[in-house]
Amino acid sequence: MLGRNALIAMWLGLLASSSAIAQTAQMSEALKLFKPIPSAPPALPGNPATPAKLELGRLLYFDPRLSASHAISCASCHNLGLGGADAEPTSIGHRWQHGGRNAPTVFNAVFNIAQFWDGRAKDLEQQASGPMMNSVEMASPAPHVAEQLKGIPGYEPLFAAAFPDASDKITLSHVQQAIAVFEATLITPNAPFDRYLKGDANALSAVQKEGLALFIGKGCATCHNGINIGGGSYAPFGVVAKPGDDLLPPSDKGRFMVTKTAGDEYVFRIPSLRNVALTAPYFHTGQVWDLRQAVAVMGSSQLGIQLSGDEVDRITAFLVSLSGDPPKVVVPVLPPSGALTPKPEP
Amino acid sequence: MLGRNALIAMWLGLLASSSAIAQTAQMSEALKLFKPIPSAPPALPGNPATPAKLELGRLLYFDPRLSASHAISCASCHNLGLGGADAEPTSIGHRWQHGGRNAPTVFNAVFNIAQFWDGRAKDLEQQASGPMMNSVEMASPAPHVAEQLKGIPGYEPLFAAAFPDASDKITLSHVQQAIAVFEATLITPNAPFDRYLKGDANALSAVQKEGLALFIGKGCATCHNGINIGGGSYAPFGVVAKPGDDLLPPSDKGRFMVTKTAGDEYVFRIPSLRNVALTAPYFHTGQVWDLRQAVAVMGSSQLGIQLSGDEVDRITAFLVSLSGDPPKVVVPVLPPSGALTPKPEP
Repeated sequence: MLGRNALIAMWLGLLASSSAIAQTAQMSEALKLFKPIPSAPPALPGNPATPAKLELGRLLYFDPRLSASHAISCASCHNLGLGGADAEPTSIGHRWQHGGRNAPTVFNAVFNIAQFWDGRAKDLEQQASGPMMNSVEMASPAPHVAEQLKGIPGYEPLFAAAFPDASDKITLSHVQQAIAVFEATLITPNAPFDRYLKGDANALSAVQKEGLALFIGKGCATCHNGINIGGGSYAPFGVVAKPGDDLLPPSDKGRFMVTKTAGDEYVFRIPSLRNVALTAPYFHTGQVWDLRQAVAVMGSSQLGIQLSGDEVDRITAFLVSLSGDPPKVVVPVLPPSGALTPKPEP
Repeated sequence: MLGRNALIAMWLGLLASSSAIAQTAQMSEALKLFKPIPSAPPALPGNPATPAKLELGRLLYFDPRLSASHAISCASCHNLGLGGADAEPTSIGHRWQHGGRNAPTVFNAVFNIAQFWDGRAKDLEQQASGPMMNSVEMASPAPHVAEQLKGIPGYEPLFAAAFPDASDKITLSHVQQAIAVFEATLITPNAPFDRYLKGDANALSAVQKEGLALFIGKGCATCHNGINIGGGSYAPFGVVAKPGDDLLPPSDKGRFMVTKTAGDEYVFRIPSLRNVALTAPYFHTGQVWDLRQAVAVMGSSQLGIQLSGDEVDRITAFLVSLSGDPPKVVVPVLPPSGALTPKPEP
């Protein structure tokens, strides 16, 4: 088997020759590692996406009254205009508390192995209630969510349409299901790299193809692969060389807090690199704003290599090709608050 | 001239007879007092709405990076899903400070005589920078706004397209102009009452027509008239009987703080009643959540009358007919932050 550097040299040599054979070889290598985002949202097992449920999910996603203050919605920290995330190191929550980790993007989250940086929620449905309940995020105790929505009369028919067979319509579990169904539609197909994977050799520039070769050859694709170019497994941050405390504070042991297994210390779900050029700042601490710097840190901490400036540039150019078509979502008209609606906490 | 009560009795009598003549008389009386919302947004003097400027305005309206924290946008407190306002007594701003007064709706604001509860901004353009600069709202000092946007590379071509003739493209003044142009499109035509004013006698229910007769006859329309059913002039709150300190705290002297004229103590811009059923809580303090209660308070404080429960119900039914078609706005894709973007304040 060829060594990494030899492989890279070979790719770059082949690319330089611009031969059709080399192009085809790179594309077929890429297809073994990556998959394009489908054009239609995936179905969620046990949670079919009816039009009524999808519409309800869209409303709930944007409704700040799911939070104790009535000021914070799912869309506050997972802003569909900001790559499905926010532009904060860590999100600002209830009473201006800061979340513990950088908000991951909701875009294509449906394709991740699990949700949250530590994978503590198995799917979107389970994830959806996490920030609602979290006292530093939306700060709504579980009974409050259903009670709140029952106090907004316009929701009653919407839940009835979405869950016609349930005896109790407005429940936290239904809220989670509806939001999950909506979030599963927030996929970003048709990125240049997806078009490339589907056979359009011209969808990537020459520099992006060099970046792809480096991305595979240097070992990035060992973790960042599959449909989400990541998001499919777990790895320790700093597997070769621990980054500084600003990027990896000792107090946050990652997945260890979920599994209590020694081997999971400082382990995190490998982030998807889909739309990564749109979601600065980076890493679970959100302390790195420059995508080039994030690439360099990954080289040293995860691969034990010092990428040259030129290599960083090419890999970064490749990462830019992972930005797909964002979902087009109309701001939903929410049922109004009224006399019977539980009041916001100041 | 007929007294109010006689007039009301006449209306109700005429309505009871359900004669076509009575219907026509009421409609023509209404047309003297009110005007329908036009189907197309009005032009802003000196600030023409080009497609590029409108698109830029839409982006800026939704961009939380106009705030010091990068967490609060125009849309946070003027939520297009919540009747163009928020569902808070007073909005939550920078570092969880509360604004001084209830956030007025942005919907149809272009038709108001001036902006803010005290009318201190003459138009949307002048209004737009107010919350940005306000230390308890978005908390962005004036130079910061332009600097922030210059640090988001994707904005440069958008400002260049919107302001092709300006030498300095990214300026606070251009931000204000673009936002104003977008906000002028946030009108809600086609409310049942608008259809009624345009000649569709069946657009209002019988109870709503009775409410309209009361609204005119009891004197509500003395202030709440014109295209915005209010919004066109100023009046003291508590002109007949001062409401309690919870609704009219002595510390907030309203328009007096702008004009320093004794006659303007506790004077406020008369709120538009367009979409009022969607924008609880009510009044500048946001302390009343029930529209019926708000109607009753207006009767006692402004007209010196005790409306009966039945009268309140009918007027409230009429007010519900003022909810128009909300604007359909797609969540804009914002240019991403990056290495050069000024960082948010924690």
